[in-house]
Amino acid sequence: MKKLVIFGVGLIGGSIALALKKARHTAEIVGVGRSGESLQAALELGVIDVATSDIAAAVRNADMILIAAPVAQTASILNAIKPHLAASTVITDAGSTKGDVMQCAQEVLGSQFSQFVGGHPIAGAEKSGVKAAMADLYAGKNVILTPAAATDSQAIQQVKSLWQACGANVSEMTAATHDSIFAAVSHLPHLLAFALVDDIASRPNAEQLFGFAASGFRDFTRIAGSHPEMWRDISLANRTALLNELEAYQQELRKLQELLQSENAKGLEALFERASIARNNWGESRKQNQ
Amino acid sequence: MKKLVIFGVGLIGGSIALALKKARHTAEIVGVGRSGESLQAALELGVIDVATSDIAAAVRNADMILIAAPVAQTASILNAIKPHLAASTVITDAGSTKGDVMQCAQEVLGSQFSQFVGGHPIAGAEKSGVKAAMADLYAGKNVILTPAAATDSQAIQQVKSLWQACGANVSEMTAATHDSIFAAVSHLPHLLAFALVDDIASRPNAEQLFGFAASGFRDFTRIAGSHPEMWRDISLANRTALLNELEAYQQELRKLQELLQSENAKGLEALFERASIARNNWGESRKQNQ
Repeated sequence: MKKLVIFGVGLIGGSIALALKKARHTAEIVGVGRSGESLQAALELGVIDVATSDIAAAVRNADMILIAAPVAQTASILNAIKPHLAASTVITDAGSTKGDVMQCAQEVLGSQFSQFVGGHPIAGAEKSGVKAAMADLYAGKNVILTPAAATDSQAIQQVKSLWQACGANVSEMTAATHDSIFAAVSHLPHLLAFALVDDIASRPNAEQLFGFAASGFRDFTRIAGSHPEMWRDISLANRTALLNELEAYQQELRKLQELLQSENAKGLEALFERASIARNNWGESRKQNQ
Repeated sequence: MKKLVIFGVGLIGGSIALALKKARHTAEIVGVGRSGESLQAALELGVIDVATSDIAAAVRNADMILIAAPVAQTASILNAIKPHLAASTVITDAGSTKGDVMQCAQEVLGSQFSQFVGGHPIAGAEKSGVKAAMADLYAGKNVILTPAAATDSQAIQQVKSLWQACGANVSEMTAATHDSIFAAVSHLPHLLAFALVDDIASRPNAEQLFGFAASGFRDFTRIAGSHPEMWRDISLANRTALLNELEAYQQELRKLQELLQSENAKGLEALFERASIARNNWGESRKQNQ
Protein backbone atom coordinates (compact mmCIF):
# COMPACT_ATOMS: atom_id res chain seq x y z
CA MET A 1 0.00 0.00 0.00
CA LYS A 2 1.25 3.44 -0.89
CA LYS A 3 -0.66 5.71 1.46
CA LEU A 4 -2.52 4.99 4.68
CA VAL A 5 -4.24 7.77 6.62
CA ILE A 6 -4.91 7.21 10.33
CA PHE A 7 -7.41 9.35 12.22
CA GLY A 8 -6.46 9.11 15.89
CA VAL A 9 -2.87 8.01 16.39
CA GLY A 10 -3.09 6.66 19.96
CA LEU A 11 -2.35 3.18 21.29
CA ILE A 12 -4.52 1.42 18.69
CA GLY A 13 -3.70 3.49 15.60
CA GLY A 14 -0.07 3.92 16.60
CA SER A 15 0.44 0.17 17.08
CA ILE A 16 -1.05 -0.53 13.65
CA ALA A 17 1.34 2.03 12.13
CA LEU A 18 4.36 0.49 13.88
CA ALA A 19 3.34 -3.03 12.82
CA LEU A 20 2.87 -1.98 9.18
CA LYS A 21 6.22 -0.21 9.13
CA LYS A 22 7.91 -3.28 10.58
CA ALA A 23 6.24 -5.46 7.94
CA ARG A 24 7.16 -2.94 5.20
CA HIS A 25 3.50 -3.06 4.20
CA THR A 26 2.88 0.66 3.72
CA ALA A 27 5.04 3.32 2.07
CA GLU A 28 3.56 6.41 3.70
CA ILE A 29 1.52 6.74 6.89
CA VAL A 30 -0.24 10.05 7.49
CA GLY A 31 -1.63 10.88 10.92
CA VAL A 32 -4.62 13.17 11.47
CA GLY A 33 -5.68 14.09 14.99
CA ARG A 34 -7.43 16.61 17.18
CA SER A 35 -4.53 16.91 19.63
CA GLY A 36 -1.57 18.58 17.92
CA GLU A 37 0.68 17.54 20.80
CA SER A 38 -0.12 13.86 20.51
CA LEU A 39 0.32 13.93 16.72
CA GLN A 40 3.67 15.69 17.14
CA ALA A 41 4.75 12.93 19.54
CA ALA A 42 3.70 10.29 16.96
CA LEU A 43 5.83 12.06 14.34
CA GLU A 44 8.84 12.35 16.65
CA LEU A 45 8.57 8.69 17.65
CA GLY A 46 8.59 7.72 13.95
CA VAL A 47 5.14 6.13 14.25
CA ILE A 48 3.83 8.24 11.33
CA ASP A 49 5.60 9.90 8.40
CA VAL A 50 3.39 12.98 8.14
CA ALA A 51 1.21 14.79 10.68
CA THR A 52 -1.52 17.06 9.41
CA SER A 53 -4.84 18.70 10.24
CA ASP A 54 -5.57 19.33 6.52
CA ILE A 55 -8.15 16.61 5.86
CA ALA A 56 -8.48 17.30 2.10
CA ALA A 57 -4.73 16.89 1.58
CA ALA A 58 -4.59 13.83 3.83
CA VAL A 59 -7.40 11.99 2.04
CA ARG A 60 -6.14 12.82 -1.49
CA ASN A 61 -4.59 9.69 -3.09
CA ALA A 62 -5.08 7.65 0.09
CA ASP A 63 -5.37 3.89 -0.48
CA MET A 64 -6.94 3.42 2.89
CA ILE A 65 -8.31 5.52 5.72
CA LEU A 66 -8.31 4.00 9.19
CA ILE A 67 -10.45 5.59 11.88
CA ALA A 68 -8.90 4.78 15.25
CA ALA A 69 -10.31 7.73 17.19
CA PRO A 70 -12.91 7.36 19.98
CA VAL A 71 -16.10 5.86 18.48
CA ALA A 72 -18.13 8.99 19.28
CA GLN A 73 -16.08 10.87 16.65
CA THR A 74 -16.76 8.40 13.81
CA ALA A 75 -19.67 10.34 12.27
CA SER A 76 -17.87 13.67 12.23
CA ILE A 77 -14.73 12.09 10.75
CA LEU A 78 -16.75 10.35 8.01
CA ASN A 79 -18.52 13.63 7.26
CA ALA A 80 -15.20 15.44 7.07
CA ILE A 81 -13.56 12.97 4.66
CA LYS A 82 -16.60 12.35 2.43
CA PRO A 83 -16.21 15.40 0.12
CA HIS A 84 -12.60 14.37 -0.67
CA LEU A 85 -13.11 10.62 -1.03
CA ALA A 86 -11.99 8.89 -4.25
CA ALA A 87 -13.89 5.80 -5.46
CA SER A 88 -10.83 3.62 -4.89
CA THR A 89 -10.17 4.59 -1.25
CA VAL A 90 -11.06 1.96 1.34
CA ILE A 91 -12.25 3.11 4.77
CA THR A 92 -12.08 1.02 7.90
CA ASP A 93 -12.24 1.51 11.66
CA ALA A 94 -11.11 -0.10 14.91
CA GLY A 95 -14.07 0.55 17.19
CA SER A 96 -15.26 -1.87 19.89
CA THR A 97 -18.89 -1.83 18.69
CA LYS A 98 -19.92 -2.45 15.12
CA GLY A 99 -23.70 -2.11 14.61
CA ASP A 100 -23.63 1.60 15.34
CA VAL A 101 -20.52 2.19 13.20
CA MET A 102 -21.92 0.32 10.18
CA GLN A 103 -25.19 2.25 10.44
CA CYS A 104 -23.37 5.55 10.74
CA ALA A 105 -21.16 4.73 7.73
CA GLN A 106 -24.22 3.84 5.68
CA GLU A 107 -25.96 7.08 6.60
CA VAL A 108 -22.98 9.34 5.97
CA LEU A 109 -21.32 7.62 3.01
CA GLY A 110 -24.47 6.76 1.06
CA SER A 111 -23.45 5.30 -2.31
CA GLN A 112 -19.84 5.04 -1.10
CA PHE A 113 -20.82 2.78 1.83
CA SER A 114 -19.49 -0.18 -0.20
CA GLN A 115 -15.97 1.19 0.42
CA PHE A 116 -16.37 0.91 4.21
CA VAL A 117 -15.26 -2.21 6.11
CA GLY A 118 -15.97 -2.20 9.85
CA GLY A 119 -13.22 -3.75 11.96
CA HIS A 120 -12.45 -4.53 15.61
CA PRO A 121 -9.03 -5.64 16.84
CA ILE A 122 -9.38 -7.70 20.06
CA ALA A 123 -6.31 -6.29 21.70
CA GLY A 124 -5.57 -3.51 24.07
CA ALA A 125 -3.36 -2.59 26.93
CA GLU A 126 -3.83 -0.82 30.22
CA LYS A 127 -1.96 2.22 28.97
CA SER A 128 -3.27 4.49 26.26
CA GLY A 129 -1.71 7.07 23.96
CA VAL A 130 0.85 6.83 21.18
CA LYS A 131 3.78 6.45 23.60
CA ALA A 132 2.34 3.07 24.62
CA ALA A 133 2.08 1.89 20.98
CA MET A 134 3.82 -1.41 20.18
CA ALA A 135 4.54 -3.10 16.84
CA ASP A 136 3.50 -6.49 18.22
CA LEU A 137 0.24 -5.47 19.91
CA TYR A 138 -1.78 -7.46 17.36
CA ALA A 139 0.53 -10.45 16.88
CA GLY A 140 -1.57 -13.59 17.29
CA LYS A 141 -4.64 -11.57 18.30
CA ASN A 142 -8.12 -11.77 16.78
CA VAL A 143 -9.41 -9.05 14.47
CA ILE A 144 -13.06 -9.16 13.40
CA LEU A 145 -14.31 -7.55 10.19
CA THR A 146 -18.03 -6.88 9.84
CA PRO A 147 -18.74 -6.22 6.15
CA ALA A 148 -22.34 -5.67 5.05
CA ALA A 149 -23.95 -7.32 2.02
CA ALA A 150 -23.12 -4.20 0.00
CA THR A 151 -19.44 -4.13 0.94
CA ASP A 152 -16.95 -4.35 -1.91
CA SER A 153 -15.06 -7.65 -1.76
CA GLN A 154 -11.75 -6.07 -2.80
CA ALA A 155 -12.11 -3.57 0.04
CA ILE A 156 -12.59 -6.45 2.49
CA GLN A 157 -9.49 -8.16 1.07
CA GLN A 158 -7.38 -5.03 1.49
CA VAL A 159 -8.39 -4.54 5.12
CA LYS A 160 -7.78 -8.23 5.76
CA SER A 161 -4.25 -7.91 4.28
CA LEU A 162 -3.52 -4.89 6.46
CA TRP A 163 -4.39 -6.79 9.65
CA GLN A 164 -2.58 -9.92 8.53
CA ALA A 165 0.52 -7.78 7.98
CA CYS A 166 0.13 -6.79 11.68
CA GLY A 167 0.21 -10.51 12.58
CA ALA A 168 -3.50 -10.79 13.46
CA ASN A 169 -5.99 -13.63 12.86
CA VAL A 170 -8.85 -12.16 10.86
CA SER A 171 -12.49 -13.37 11.06
CA GLU A 172 -15.62 -12.05 9.37
CA MET A 173 -19.14 -11.92 10.81
CA THR A 174 -22.15 -9.63 10.78
CA ALA A 175 -22.11 -6.53 12.94
CA ALA A 176 -25.05 -7.92 14.93
CA THR A 177 -23.24 -11.19 15.71
CA HIS A 178 -20.13 -9.24 16.69
CA ASP A 179 -22.07 -6.99 19.04
CA SER A 180 -23.89 -9.84 20.77
CA ILE A 181 -20.63 -11.78 21.30
CA PHE A 182 -18.83 -8.79 22.78
CA ALA A 183 -21.77 -7.77 24.93
CA ALA A 184 -21.34 -11.17 26.63
CA VAL A 185 -17.56 -11.61 26.88
CA SER A 186 -16.36 -8.03 27.17
CA HIS A 187 -18.97 -5.32 27.72
CA LEU A 188 -20.91 -7.15 30.45
CA PRO A 189 -17.77 -8.04 32.49
CA HIS A 190 -16.66 -4.39 32.30
CA LEU A 191 -20.03 -3.20 33.62
CA LEU A 192 -19.99 -5.86 36.37
CA ALA A 193 -16.53 -4.76 37.50
CA PHE A 194 -17.46 -1.05 37.44
CA ALA A 195 -20.61 -1.90 39.43
CA LEU A 196 -18.73 -3.81 42.12
CA VAL A 197 -16.12 -1.11 42.68
CA ASP A 198 -18.75 1.65 42.66
CA ASP A 199 -20.83 -0.33 45.15
CA ILE A 200 -17.88 -0.75 47.53
CA ALA A 201 -16.45 2.75 47.05
CA SER A 202 -19.79 4.31 48.03
CA ARG A 203 -19.92 2.68 51.47
CA PRO A 204 -19.02 4.39 54.76
CA ASN A 205 -16.39 1.67 55.46
CA ALA A 206 -14.92 1.71 51.92
CA GLU A 207 -11.39 2.30 53.19
CA GLN A 208 -11.53 -0.75 55.46
CA LEU A 209 -13.01 -2.88 52.67
CA PHE A 210 -10.34 -1.85 50.15
CA GLY A 211 -7.71 -2.42 52.86
CA PHE A 212 -8.48 -6.15 52.99
CA ALA A 213 -9.13 -6.69 49.27
CA ALA A 214 -6.52 -9.07 47.86
CA SER A 215 -5.38 -10.62 44.58
CA GLY A 216 -8.77 -12.09 43.62
CA PHE A 217 -10.32 -8.64 43.90
CA ARG A 218 -7.38 -7.11 42.05
CA ASP A 219 -7.84 -9.29 38.97
CA PHE A 220 -11.64 -9.23 39.04
CA THR A 221 -11.70 -5.42 39.12
CA ARG A 222 -8.75 -4.65 36.84
CA ILE A 223 -11.10 -3.67 34.01
CA ALA A 224 -12.96 -1.30 36.36
CA GLY A 225 -9.91 0.97 35.95
CA SER A 226 -10.79 1.40 32.25
CA HIS A 227 -11.52 4.71 30.56
CA PRO A 228 -14.96 6.04 31.69
CA GLU A 229 -15.66 8.03 28.50
CA MET A 230 -14.80 5.10 26.23
CA TRP A 231 -17.01 2.72 28.21
CA ARG A 232 -19.86 5.20 28.30
CA ASP A 233 -19.76 5.24 24.47
CA ILE A 234 -19.44 1.45 24.14
CA SER A 235 -22.30 0.87 26.59
CA LEU A 236 -24.62 3.24 24.77
CA ALA A 237 -23.61 2.00 21.31
CA ASN A 238 -24.27 -1.63 22.29
CA ARG A 239 -27.14 -0.81 24.62
CA THR A 240 -29.66 -3.37 23.37
CA ALA A 241 -27.35 -6.40 23.48
CA LEU A 242 -25.94 -5.23 26.80
CA LEU A 243 -29.40 -4.90 28.38
CA ASN A 244 -30.14 -8.48 27.25
CA GLU A 245 -26.90 -9.62 28.87
CA LEU A 246 -27.63 -7.79 32.11
CA GLU A 247 -31.05 -9.44 32.22
CA ALA A 248 -29.59 -12.93 31.64
CA TYR A 249 -26.92 -12.29 34.27
CA GLN A 250 -29.44 -11.16 36.85
CA GLN A 251 -31.38 -14.37 36.25
CA GLU A 252 -28.17 -16.28 36.97
CA LEU A 253 -27.69 -14.26 40.17
CA ARG A 254 -31.25 -15.00 41.25
CA LYS A 255 -30.49 -18.71 40.72
CA LEU A 256 -27.47 -18.32 43.03
CA GLN A 257 -29.55 -16.43 45.60
CA GLU A 258 -32.12 -19.23 45.65
CA LEU A 259 -29.42 -21.88 46.08
CA LEU A 260 -27.98 -19.92 49.00
CA GLN A 261 -31.35 -19.19 50.58
CA SER A 262 -32.32 -22.86 50.48
CA GLU A 263 -28.80 -23.92 51.62
CA ASN A 264 -28.62 -26.15 48.56
CA ALA A 265 -25.05 -27.42 48.91
CA LYS A 266 -25.25 -29.81 45.96
CA GLY A 267 -26.71 -27.16 43.66
CA LEU A 268 -24.07 -24.60 44.63
CA GLU A 269 -21.23 -27.07 44.15
CA ALA A 270 -22.63 -28.13 40.77
CA LEU A 271 -22.80 -24.52 39.55
CA PHE A 272 -19.29 -23.73 40.83
CA GLU A 273 -17.97 -26.92 39.29
CA ARG A 274 -19.47 -26.23 35.85
CA ALA A 275 -17.95 -22.74 35.93
CA SER A 276 -14.60 -23.90 37.26
CA ILE A 277 -14.21 -26.63 34.63
CA ALA A 278 -15.27 -24.29 31.81
CA ARG A 279 -12.90 -21.55 33.01
CA ASN A 280 -9.93 -23.85 33.42
CA ASN A 281 -10.52 -25.54 30.04
CA TRP A 282 -10.69 -22.10 28.42
CA GLY A 283 -7.46 -21.05 30.14
CA GLU A 284 -5.71 -24.20 28.93
CA SER A 285 -6.87 -23.86 25.31
CA ARG A 286 -5.81 -20.20 25.36
CA LYS A 287 -2.32 -21.12 26.53
CA GLN A 288 -2.00 -23.72 23.78
CA ASN A 289 -2.99 -21.18 21.13
CA GLN A 290 -0.39 -18.66 22.20
CA MET B 1 7.59 -22.85 70.33
CA LYS B 2 8.47 -26.47 70.92
CA LYS B 3 5.67 -28.35 69.21
CA LEU B 4 3.17 -27.26 66.56
CA VAL B 5 0.59 -29.69 65.18
CA ILE B 6 -0.92 -28.95 61.77
CA PHE B 7 -4.14 -30.62 60.64
CA GLY B 8 -4.17 -30.43 56.84
CA VAL B 9 -0.70 -29.90 55.40
CA GLY B 10 -1.61 -28.43 51.99
CA LEU B 11 -0.70 -25.09 50.46
CA ILE B 12 -1.83 -23.07 53.50
CA GLY B 13 -0.57 -25.33 56.30
CA GLY B 14 2.57 -26.28 54.39
CA SER B 15 3.50 -22.66 53.74
CA ILE B 16 3.11 -21.82 57.44
CA ALA B 17 5.37 -24.77 58.31
CA LEU B 18 8.02 -23.66 55.82
CA ALA B 19 7.89 -20.05 57.04
CA LEU B 20 8.22 -21.11 60.70
CA LYS B 21 11.15 -23.38 59.90
CA LYS B 22 12.85 -20.57 58.00
CA ALA B 23 12.30 -18.22 60.97
CA ARG B 24 13.48 -20.93 63.41
CA HIS B 25 10.26 -20.27 65.32
CA THR B 26 9.23 -23.87 66.01
CA ALA B 27 11.33 -26.86 67.09
CA GLU B 28 8.99 -29.64 65.94
CA ILE B 29 6.16 -29.57 63.40
CA VAL B 30 3.81 -32.55 63.33
CA GLY B 31 1.46 -33.06 60.41
CA VAL B 32 -1.89 -34.84 60.69
CA GLY B 33 -3.95 -35.49 57.59
CA ARG B 34 -6.59 -37.65 55.97
CA SER B 35 -4.52 -38.34 52.85
CA GLY B 36 -1.52 -40.48 53.75
CA GLU B 37 0.04 -39.75 50.37
CA SER B 38 -0.06 -35.98 50.80
CA LEU B 39 1.32 -36.23 54.33
CA GLN B 40 4.11 -38.47 53.08
CA ALA B 41 4.97 -35.85 50.45
CA ALA B 42 5.06 -33.16 53.17
CA LEU B 43 7.48 -35.30 55.15
CA GLU B 44 9.70 -36.00 52.16
CA LEU B 45 9.78 -32.32 51.20
CA GLY B 46 10.91 -31.48 54.76
CA VAL B 47 7.81 -29.35 55.35
CA ILE B 48 6.98 -31.31 58.53
CA ASP B 49 9.16 -33.30 60.93
CA VAL B 50 6.64 -35.99 61.80
CA ALA B 51 3.61 -37.36 59.97
CA THR B 52 0.99 -39.21 61.94
CA SER B 53 -2.63 -40.29 62.03
CA ASP B 54 -2.47 -40.88 65.81
CA ILE B 55 -4.33 -37.85 67.09
CA ALA B 56 -3.77 -38.55 70.81
CA ALA B 57 -0.01 -38.74 70.33
CA ALA B 58 0.04 -35.70 68.08
CA VAL B 59 -1.89 -33.48 70.50
CA ARG B 60 0.10 -34.58 73.60
CA ASN B 61 2.47 -31.77 74.67
CA ALA B 62 1.49 -29.59 71.72
CA ASP B 63 1.97 -25.86 72.29
CA MET B 64 -0.31 -25.06 69.43
CA ILE B 65 -2.70 -26.85 67.08
CA LEU B 66 -3.36 -25.26 63.72
CA ILE B 67 -6.36 -26.43 61.71
CA ALA B 68 -5.63 -25.79 58.02
CA ALA B 69 -7.95 -28.45 56.58
CA PRO B 70 -11.09 -27.59 54.57
CA VAL B 71 -13.50 -25.65 56.82
CA ALA B 72 -16.14 -28.40 56.63
CA GLN B 73 -13.78 -30.64 58.67
CA THR B 74 -13.31 -28.17 61.54
CA ALA B 75 -15.99 -29.67 63.81
CA SER B 76 -14.79 -33.23 63.44
CA ILE B 77 -11.15 -32.20 64.02
CA LEU B 78 -12.10 -30.24 67.16
CA ASN B 79 -14.11 -33.22 68.42
CA ALA B 80 -11.16 -35.53 67.76
CA ILE B 81 -8.61 -33.41 69.61
CA LYS B 82 -10.81 -32.38 72.55
CA PRO B 83 -10.30 -35.50 74.74
CA HIS B 84 -6.50 -35.07 74.52
CA LEU B 85 -6.30 -31.30 74.95
CA ALA B 86 -4.15 -29.84 77.73
CA ALA B 87 -5.16 -26.53 79.34
CA SER B 88 -2.04 -24.85 77.96
CA THR B 89 -2.51 -25.82 74.30
CA VAL B 90 -3.61 -23.02 71.98
CA ILE B 91 -5.81 -23.89 69.00
CA THR B 92 -6.16 -21.77 65.88
CA ASP B 93 -7.36 -22.13 62.31
CA ALA B 94 -6.89 -20.65 58.86
CA GLY B 95 -10.40 -20.77 57.44
CA SER B 96 -11.86 -18.13 55.13
CA THR B 97 -15.00 -17.63 57.21
CA LYS B 98 -14.97 -16.93 60.93
CA GLY B 99 -18.48 -16.70 62.41
CA ASP B 100 -19.18 -20.36 61.75
CA VAL B 101 -15.75 -21.47 63.02
CA MET B 102 -16.01 -19.48 66.25
CA GLN B 103 -19.49 -20.86 66.89
CA CYS B 104 -18.35 -24.40 66.18
CA ALA B 105 -15.34 -24.01 68.50
CA GLN B 106 -17.57 -22.70 71.27
CA GLU B 107 -20.00 -25.62 70.90
CA VAL B 108 -17.33 -28.32 70.75
CA LEU B 109 -14.72 -26.96 73.15
CA GLY B 110 -17.07 -25.66 75.84
CA SER B 111 -15.00 -24.46 78.80
CA GLN B 112 -11.83 -24.75 76.68
CA PHE B 113 -13.18 -22.29 74.07
CA SER B 114 -10.91 -19.62 75.62
CA GLN B 115 -7.94 -21.52 74.15
CA PHE B 116 -9.24 -21.10 70.59
CA VAL B 117 -8.20 -18.13 68.40
CA GLY B 118 -9.87 -17.93 64.97
CA GLY B 119 -7.56 -16.79 62.18
CA HIS B 120 -7.65 -16.04 58.47
CA PRO B 121 -4.54 -15.46 56.36
CA ILE B 122 -5.39 -13.30 53.31
CA ALA B 123 -3.11 -15.13 50.95
CA GLY B 124 -3.46 -17.92 48.51
CA ALA B 125 -2.25 -19.12 45.19
CA GLU B 126 -3.82 -20.70 42.15
CA LYS B 127 -2.21 -24.02 42.94
CA SER B 128 -3.10 -26.12 45.92
CA GLY B 129 -1.41 -28.97 47.79
CA VAL B 130 1.79 -29.19 49.79
CA LYS B 131 4.00 -29.22 46.69
CA ALA B 132 2.90 -25.62 46.01
CA ALA B 133 3.78 -24.51 49.57
CA MET B 134 6.18 -21.55 49.85
CA ALA B 135 7.99 -20.09 52.85
CA ASP B 136 7.17 -16.52 51.73
CA LEU B 137 3.45 -16.99 50.97
CA TYR B 138 2.51 -14.78 53.94
CA ALA B 139 5.30 -12.19 53.74
CA GLY B 140 3.69 -8.75 53.84
CA LYS B 141 0.19 -10.26 53.69
CA ASN B 142 -2.70 -9.56 56.07
CA VAL B 143 -3.76 -12.09 58.68
CA ILE B 144 -6.92 -11.45 60.65
CA LEU B 145 -7.53 -12.91 64.12
CA THR B 146 -11.09 -13.00 65.46
CA PRO B 147 -10.91 -13.63 69.20
CA ALA B 148 -14.12 -13.62 71.21
CA ALA B 149 -14.62 -11.81 74.54
CA ALA B 150 -13.79 -15.09 76.32
CA THR B 151 -10.55 -15.72 74.44
CA ASP B 152 -7.40 -15.94 76.55
CA SER B 153 -5.13 -12.96 75.85
CA GLN B 154 -1.96 -15.08 76.02
CA ALA B 155 -3.43 -17.41 73.42
CA ILE B 156 -4.07 -14.43 71.12
CA GLN B 157 -0.49 -13.28 71.65
CA GLN B 158 0.94 -16.68 70.75
CA VAL B 159 -1.05 -16.93 67.51
CA LYS B 160 -0.05 -13.36 66.66
CA SER B 161 3.63 -14.26 67.18
CA LEU B 162 3.28 -17.31 64.94
CA TRP B 163 1.94 -15.21 62.06
CA GLN B 164 4.45 -12.43 62.63
CA ALA B 165 7.20 -15.04 62.37
CA CYS B 166 5.71 -15.87 58.93
CA GLY B 167 6.13 -12.19 57.96
CA ALA B 168 2.42 -11.31 58.08
CA ASN B 169 0.65 -8.13 59.26
CA VAL B 170 -1.79 -9.20 61.97
CA SER B 171 -5.12 -7.42 62.70
CA GLU B 172 -7.87 -8.27 65.18
CA MET B 173 -11.61 -7.82 64.70
CA THR B 174 -14.83 -9.61 65.57
CA ALA B 175 -15.84 -12.63 63.52
CA ALA B 176 -18.94 -10.75 62.35
CA THR B 177 -16.91 -7.79 61.06
CA HIS B 178 -14.52 -10.19 59.34
CA ASP B 179 -17.32 -12.04 57.61
CA SER B 180 -19.05 -8.90 56.36
CA ILE B 181 -15.79 -7.49 54.97
CA PHE B 182 -14.92 -10.70 53.12
CA ALA B 183 -18.44 -11.18 51.83
CA ALA B 184 -17.94 -7.86 50.01
CA VAL B 185 -14.34 -8.02 48.78
CA SER B 186 -13.84 -11.74 48.25
CA HIS B 187 -16.89 -13.99 48.45
CA LEU B 188 -19.17 -11.83 46.29
CA PRO B 189 -16.57 -11.39 43.49
CA HIS B 190 -16.04 -15.17 43.45
CA LEU B 191 -19.78 -15.79 43.08
CA LEU B 192 -20.03 -13.11 40.37
CA ALA B 193 -17.21 -14.72 38.39
CA PHE B 194 -18.66 -18.24 38.78
CA ALA B 195 -22.05 -16.87 37.65
CA LEU B 196 -20.65 -15.21 34.52
CA VAL B 197 -18.74 -18.29 33.37
CA ASP B 198 -21.66 -20.60 34.12
CA ASP B 199 -24.00 -18.26 32.22
CA ILE B 200 -21.72 -18.25 29.15
CA ALA B 201 -20.79 -21.95 29.30
CA SER B 202 -24.47 -22.96 29.27
CA ARG B 203 -25.23 -21.25 25.94
CA PRO B 204 -25.49 -23.00 22.57
CA ASN B 205 -22.73 -20.74 21.16
CA ALA B 206 -20.44 -21.07 24.19
CA GLU B 207 -17.50 -22.17 22.06
CA GLN B 208 -17.74 -19.09 19.84
CA LEU B 209 -18.10 -16.81 22.88
CA PHE B 210 -15.05 -18.28 24.64
CA GLY B 211 -13.16 -18.09 21.34
CA PHE B 212 -13.35 -14.29 21.32
CA ALA B 213 -12.91 -13.72 25.06
CA ALA B 214 -9.70 -11.79 25.70
CA SER B 215 -7.51 -10.52 28.53
CA GLY B 216 -10.27 -8.56 30.30
CA PHE B 217 -12.36 -11.72 30.52
CA ARG B 218 -9.30 -13.73 31.56
CA ASP B 219 -8.61 -11.57 34.61
CA PHE B 220 -12.25 -11.03 35.53
CA THR B 221 -12.92 -14.78 35.55
CA ARG B 222 -9.64 -16.06 37.00
CA ILE B 223 -11.30 -16.71 40.37
CA ALA B 224 -14.04 -18.72 38.65
CA GLY B 225 -11.39 -21.43 38.28
CA SER B 226 -11.33 -21.80 42.09
CA HIS B 227 -12.11 -24.98 43.99
CA PRO B 228 -15.88 -25.75 43.83
CA GLU B 229 -16.05 -27.67 47.12
CA MET B 230 -14.16 -24.96 49.02
CA TRP B 231 -16.41 -22.22 47.63
CA ARG B 232 -19.55 -24.22 48.36
CA ASP B 233 -18.44 -24.35 52.01
CA ILE B 234 -17.46 -20.67 52.18
CA SER B 235 -20.74 -19.60 50.54
CA LEU B 236 -22.84 -21.62 52.96
CA ALA B 237 -20.79 -20.62 56.00
CA ASN B 238 -21.11 -16.92 55.16
CA ARG B 239 -24.58 -17.22 53.69
CA THR B 240 -26.24 -14.32 55.51
CA ALA B 241 -23.60 -11.69 54.73
CA LEU B 242 -23.31 -13.01 51.18
CA LEU B 243 -27.05 -12.75 50.56
CA ASN B 244 -26.91 -9.12 51.77
CA GLU B 245 -24.06 -8.47 49.35
CA LEU B 246 -25.91 -10.09 46.45
CA GLU B 247 -28.92 -7.92 47.19
CA ALA B 248 -26.83 -4.72 47.29
CA TYR B 249 -25.08 -5.71 44.08
CA GLN B 250 -28.33 -6.38 42.27
CA GLN B 251 -29.51 -2.91 43.28
CA GLU B 252 -26.34 -1.52 41.72
CA LEU B 253 -27.04 -3.52 38.54
CA ARG B 254 -30.60 -2.20 38.42
CA LYS B 255 -29.16 1.32 38.65
CA LEU B 256 -26.95 0.51 35.65
CA GLN B 257 -29.90 -0.97 33.76
CA GLU B 258 -31.92 2.21 34.32
CA LEU B 259 -29.04 4.41 33.14
CA LEU B 260 -28.74 2.30 29.97
CA GLN B 261 -32.49 2.15 29.36
CA SER B 262 -32.79 5.92 29.61
CA GLU B 263 -29.57 6.44 27.57
CA ASN B 264 -28.25 8.56 30.43
CA ALA B 265 -24.74 9.26 29.13
CA LYS B 266 -23.79 11.59 31.98
CA GLY B 267 -25.00 9.15 34.64
CA LEU B 268 -23.13 6.21 33.06
CA GLU B 269 -19.93 8.19 32.73
CA ALA B 270 -20.21 9.40 36.34
CA LEU B 271 -20.63 5.83 37.64
CA PHE B 272 -17.74 4.51 35.51
CA GLU B 273 -15.58 7.43 36.58
CA ARG B 274 -16.23 6.92 40.30
CA ALA B 275 -15.34 3.23 39.90
CA SER B 276 -12.32 3.88 37.73
CA ILE B 277 -10.84 6.47 40.10
CA ALA B 278 -11.48 4.26 43.15
CA ARG B 279 -9.96 1.20 41.43
CA ASN B 280 -6.88 3.02 40.21
CA ASN B 281 -6.30 4.71 43.59
CA TRP B 282 -6.57 1.32 45.28
CA GLY B 283 -4.11 -0.20 42.79
CA GLU B 284 -1.63 2.61 43.44
CA SER B 285 -1.84 2.39 47.24
CA ARG B 286 -1.41 -1.39 46.99
CA LYS B 287 1.74 -1.01 44.94
CA GLN B 288 3.18 1.45 47.46
CA ASN B 289 2.53 -0.95 50.32
CA GLN B 290 4.33 -3.84 48.67
